[in-house]
Amino acid sequence: MIIVMRKGATEEEIADVVERVERAGFGVHLSRGEESTIVGVIGGDRASLEALGSSLEGHPGVARTMRVTKPYKLVSREFHPEDTVVEVGGVRFGGGEVPVIAGPCAVEGRELYLEAAFAAREAGATVLRGGAYKPRSSPYTFQGLGEEGLEILAEARERTGLPVCTEVMDPESVPLVARYADILQVGARNAQNYPLLRALGQIDRPVLLKRGFGTTIEEWLSAAEYILAGGNSQVILCERGIRTFETATRFTLDVAAVPVVRQLTHLPVVVDPSHAAGKRQWVAALARAAVAAGADGLEVEVHPRPDESVSDAAQALSPEAFRQMMDEIAAIAAVLGRRVPLPTAHTRPAAGAPVAPVGD
Amino acid sequence: MIIVMRKGATEEEIADVVERVERAGFGVHLSRGEESTIVGVIGGDRASLEALGSSLEGHPGVARTMRVTKPYKLVSREFHPEDTVVEVGGVRFGGGEVPVIAGPCAVEGRELYLEAAFAAREAGATVLRGGAYKPRSSPYTFQGLGEEGLEILAEARERTGLPVCTEVMDPESVPLVARYADILQVGARNAQNYPLLRALGQIDRPVLLKRGFGTTIEEWLSAAEYILAGGNSQVILCERGIRTFETATRFTLDVAAVPVVRQLTHLPVVVDPSHAAGKRQWVAALARAAVAAGADGLEVEVHPRPDESVSDAAQALSPEAFRQMMDEIAAIAAVLGRRVPLPTAHTRPAAGAPVAPVGD
Amino acid sequence: MIIVMRKGATEEEIADVVERVERAGFGVHLSRGEESTIVGVIGGDRASLEALGSSLEGHPGVARTMRVTKPYKLVSREFHPEDTVVEVGGVRFGGGEVPVIAGPCAVEGRELYLEAAFAAREAGATVLRGGAYKPRSSPYTFQGLGEEGLEILAEARERTGLPVCTEVMDPESVPLVARYADILQVGARNAQNYPLLRALGQIDRPVLLKRGFGTTIEEWLSAAEYILAGGNSQVILCERGIRTFETATRFTLDVAAVPVVRQLTHLPVVVDPSHAAGKRQWVAALARAAVAAGADGLEVEVHPRPDESVSDAAQALSPEAFRQMMDEIAAIAAVLGRRVPLPTAHTRPAAGAPVAPVGD
Amino acid sequence: MIIVMRKGATEEEIADVVERVERAGFGVHLSRGEESTIVGVIGGDRASLEALGSSLEGHPGVARTMRVTKPYKLVSREFHPEDTVVEVGGVRFGGGEVPVIAGPCAVEGRELYLEAAFAAREAGATVLRGGAYKPRSSPYTFQGLGEEGLEILAEARERTGLPVCTEVMDPESVPLVARYADILQVGARNAQNYPLLRALGQIDRPVLLKRGFGTTIEEWLSAAEYILAGGNSQVILCERGIRTFETATRFTLDVAAVPVVRQLTHLPVVVDPSHAAGKRQWVAALARAAVAAGADGLEVEVHPRPDESVSDAAQALSPEAFRQMMDEIAAIAAVLGRRVPLPTAHTRPAAGAPVAPVGD
Repeated sequence: MIIVMRKGATEEEIADVVERVERAGFGVHLSRGEESTIVGVIGGDRASLEALGSSLEGHPGVARTMRVTKPYKLVSREFHPEDTVVEVGGVRFGGGEVPVIAGPCAVEGRELYLEAAFAAREAGATVLRGGAYKPRSSPYTFQGLGEEGLEILAEARERTGLPVCTEVMDPESVPLVARYADILQVGARNAQNYPLLRALGQIDRPVLLKRGFGTTIEEWLSAAEYILAGGNSQVILCERGIRTFETATRFTLDVAAVPVVRQLTHLPVVVDPSHAAGKRQWVAALARAAVAAGADGLEVEVHPRPDESVSDAAQALSPEAFRQMMDEIAAIAAVLGRRVPLPTAHTRPAAGAPVAPVGD
Repeated sequence: MIIVMRKGATEEEIADVVERVERAGFGVHLSRGEESTIVGVIGGDRASLEALGSSLEGHPGVARTMRVTKPYKLVSREFHPEDTVVEVGGVRFGGGEVPVIAGPCAVEGRELYLEAAFAAREAGATVLRGGAYKPRSSPYTFQGLGEEGLEILAEARERTGLPVCTEVMDPESVPLVARYADILQVGARNAQNYPLLRALGQIDRPVLLKRGFGTTIEEWLSAAEYILAGGNSQVILCERGIRTFETATRFTLDVAAVPVVRQLTHLPVVVDPSHAAGKRQWVAALARAAVAAGADGLEVEVHPRPDESVSDAAQALSPEAFRQMMDEIAAIAAVLGRRVPLPTAHTRPAAGAPVAPVGD
Repeated sequence: MIIVMRKGATEEEIADVVERVERAGFGVHLSRGEESTIVGVIGGDRASLEALGSSLEGHPGVARTMRVTKPYKLVSREFHPEDTVVEVGGVRFGGGEVPVIAGPCAVEGRELYLEAAFAAREAGATVLRGGAYKPRSSPYTFQGLGEEGLEILAEARERTGLPVCTEVMDPESVPLVARYADILQVGARNAQNYPLLRALGQIDRPVLLKRGFGTTIEEWLSAAEYILAGGNSQVILCERGIRTFETATRFTLDVAAVPVVRQLTHLPVVVDPSHAAGKRQWVAALARAAVAAGADGLEVEVHPRPDESVSDAAQALSPEAFRQMMDEIAAIAAVLGRRVPLPTAHTRPAAGAPVAPVGD
Repeated sequence: MIIVMRKGATEEEIADVVERVERAGFGVHLSRGEESTIVGVIGGDRASLEALGSSLEGHPGVARTMRVTKPYKLVSREFHPEDTVVEVGGVRFGGGEVPVIAGPCAVEGRELYLEAAFAAREAGATVLRGGAYKPRSSPYTFQGLGEEGLEILAEARERTGLPVCTEVMDPESVPLVARYADILQVGARNAQNYPLLRALGQIDRPVLLKRGFGTTIEEWLSAAEYILAGGNSQVILCERGIRTFETATRFTLDVAAVPVVRQLTHLPVVVDPSHAAGKRQWVAALARAAVAAGADGLEVEVHPRPDESVSDAAQALSPEAFRQMMDEIAAIAAVLGRRVPLPTAHTRPAAGAPVAPVGD
């Protein structure tokens, strides 16, 4: 950490700051410039530094403190230079492949979900998505089928041979959801739900961690650090748009987060173009942009008959539109020397259920 | 809901939209303007309307859909025109009084917390605050004392006679925290944690609901609706700053949210100037602004020796600075015909613990 | 326009609103729903509607007014369904080609600029960029060479055969800059400088209109409307990042603006990935994303020796990095059935100067 | 400036950075921490520092550069510790008084404007406002009366004895507007129009500089620096709301900017609650908040019959509502030991026109 003294800070103030830093157990490196004196803080752990910095922010002689180190460690590329590959049922996130997670926003019913799952697989999806628990801003809208939804997901996995990804909303439900799902998803509204993140650090199952729409990249990576610090390093990051003043789209896709995050961390980063766009006519453009920017995968909403969807209908692609998007992103991935994997006989659900005859 | 057809939408498209609306069980009111045709949707409940609107957003003949009704009902002033007064231990939020909740960010230890509690009361606070569970963006910083912290809070309540307000972070902990606290606080990062909000709807204890820093006013009120819909109408709203591009302050206090929310809802709204400012030298100015804008109370961080605080030291007021702030806001409240209540012998904790001799 | 009456508005209030609308010369279409009454306003021009709407916003019986028509007309795709192609010196923006404008941020000197211009052309740029007048946030940083810079740009055009694009900052300078430049650029800070936009409506020369970093898409298109309303329809829109809470990049590239704008307007839209990224290591990823999203071109900062640049050095690509970026975007454009044009003998500056032997 | 080297930067990289810094004419102070090496840059002027920093941002061994000094000098409180008082026609901004500028958004006609001016004065305004040139986002809305509007303003000044404040939109018009106006206003959309700011640096007349709605406090103060650097130090800053994701209000009033700016600079800072609120029912609350936060004045839209206003009708106060607001803010100012001045016989326009009998 660096402490910039106020221009005109007195010698007493400088000495007082130095003394506090030393008393807190850190080394000091003093640098007197023409305009201001700078106190470099050497050593110490992250927590003590944070507390020291905050306490000195209010000191009358201090102009400001500037953190030099990042607030996270295990997720940083400096700590772990090689790309982490998260493998789930034969699908690899982070190793140069660009798998696509697809399916309806919510699991609305058995028949419909199975139809959607087969349509998604046929168009090239290698992981299925679908919410059994839905965080909805109004208490009066559809909140998900709960465990019944999880059972439908499990059946879809058995019959399609594809692993499934679904949201978990509170720590208590983690064991239940983990019994059914291959990837546990943390939604944007829970991006800083620390009890939930801690619970996910205790399990041995991949986690897809969405960025909160009001969350900085640094906070997002710090949230991932909670999971890794708990012992679970199978984390897939997911950019899904942030809140800005622009209202034409539902959120503003921060496509630059893809190269930024790939530089800062070794974890794979995928993009959800559906929630960012909010309208289906812009989803494919955002999906292409994400892959072109280097995303390690996509999560896309697909519905057999989008107009009949009970949740987020406006942003779901039809199977036809999804297929065309898949063709485009496969070609773009190839430009970058990457590959969009297709579902094969080798695709196997991770959570161990026997695979039913495909195309049943 | 209103459906605006595209300029140039065909008669077939208009007929198709009308048919869908009717099939969904709504009435239709067609209005043909010079530039565009508008389909008014009549009747129906909120959930069906939401689903219908989303599904029609993708229709080729539709330019856009516009919701006319609000997504919340029980929290709206139209539904309940009179101000709701939330009373806790003799302190009233919402009835023209402007009580102040004060104390350290976190409960760091018994001695220190009791010292802080008495200092806060002496300066005029009528409710104590202090976190036993702290949502921190880094897993390596102080996370709170947990139940030990709750016990310290309970002791502080007994000895000062002031009710206490503390944060709860997950649904499972609600019963435990409710055993100790007079007001259960939902932090900004959990502002859309729906399982938690649902759990708080089940209890008979006031809830202080902070606005998420990426959350619109409409979403914030919808989050409150979850609690009221569950049966608990003792909700105090708390504005604490939103995320914007400005970095001089930690967050941008949306002071206009105070009059806006007071118009939209009957629930009391208080302001937390400490987290918005992020630096103690600006806290009093924001506190004064909040009271002048009509806030029904404040929540302020006060620490006996701010520089020694382990959490958010930079934004904590010293007892002296807090006292001066209290004098200023009392005078400003008076301008608006309101009153900042002071702690008295009549102040009694709500949760029933016997009150110890004050000043012990 | 639609006027939504308050729930509980009285018959007198409704009658009063209807009377005002009619008195202002509009037709009325009344629709009484279960929850609220809606007054549809029929006919009238944009200006009167705007004034009526604003005046009714304050009416005690009115909940809110909602505009149905867009604030712009000439730039809208409804008014002009076919893509507008802006041609400059043989380079076409908007007709399925993806030309790249490249060069240093500022014209720093003759030798350096010519070196940069040839390097940019060699790597595939078909238009040159370079600022003679620089809007800088500090008055103490380099402000551009002024007319001397324009002369260097003209010489570069003659010698490379490529048209040039440069910024104009005030209406008075428009004739001077138009004498030298093939495309006049409006910077983000002048995106709503209406006297400047009006002056650009009077000339017969293409304008590249950057989006302001605090400007919505609707305001951006309305700014373009000023130029078209003046008689100049050769407008190229340029997305260059908006202000958000994220600070990892200099601005947040709103890549979704590309498909949104292409749907709303017939004007070509290009992307400036350099200012959005702010750091050169992320420029190519954003350039690829922009082309993949459907951008009609790019504007990129290239410098022979980026580290020596006096302006925005951190975001300038070296010629080598630029060449690699060009290869990637050419391949991505091909995926979309589009083509990145290369400089050829046929490339001719638009403003009529004789072309010097290439490769001199 | 401080250069933070990458963790793991080689000795060659460190030596190369040091050499570049020295070659650019700066001194070097090297500090080797446990995690990273820091290069302190000593001496030099702002422009060279900015260029050096930007050029090193791209260096492979550099993690990031951090500016220690501010980009502005003349406006900083460090350079000029005492409050600057801007006096205009006997009205003082910045010396503990809280004058109020009031009047209609635009000058719509002579009769109406004079009526508004007398009403504003009667309610306590000490400066008149009114736009003769209006920056409107649509070219089809009322753009102001131009010079005719200026003449009306001059007449209003003569007859009321109050100085007038009006907007100037381009450098060419500065002399004309300065002939009529006592305070020249720079609107939010021109907050970074540097040719205009430079032109205003050349005149001897107070300037009211609005903050751009996408502009940081640092950029706003840097814009003021342009005016002071030109030789004109009579600058009044005006906060008027910034762009955020919240849409309930037209903009989000950054009330914290008041104490922040008063700490950073010696210039007076006033607040425009009308544009921030966008709806008249919230204007008084924001005005009270601004004065409570320490604002040195207000600029408020008042219209004799708000519903008939052709520009921004929704946010204009009636004279009655304005009078009530004046009473409230006077009482709040008194709490802070400040005074809202009232118009008196001594109020005299600054620009020298003879004062007509008041109440004529």
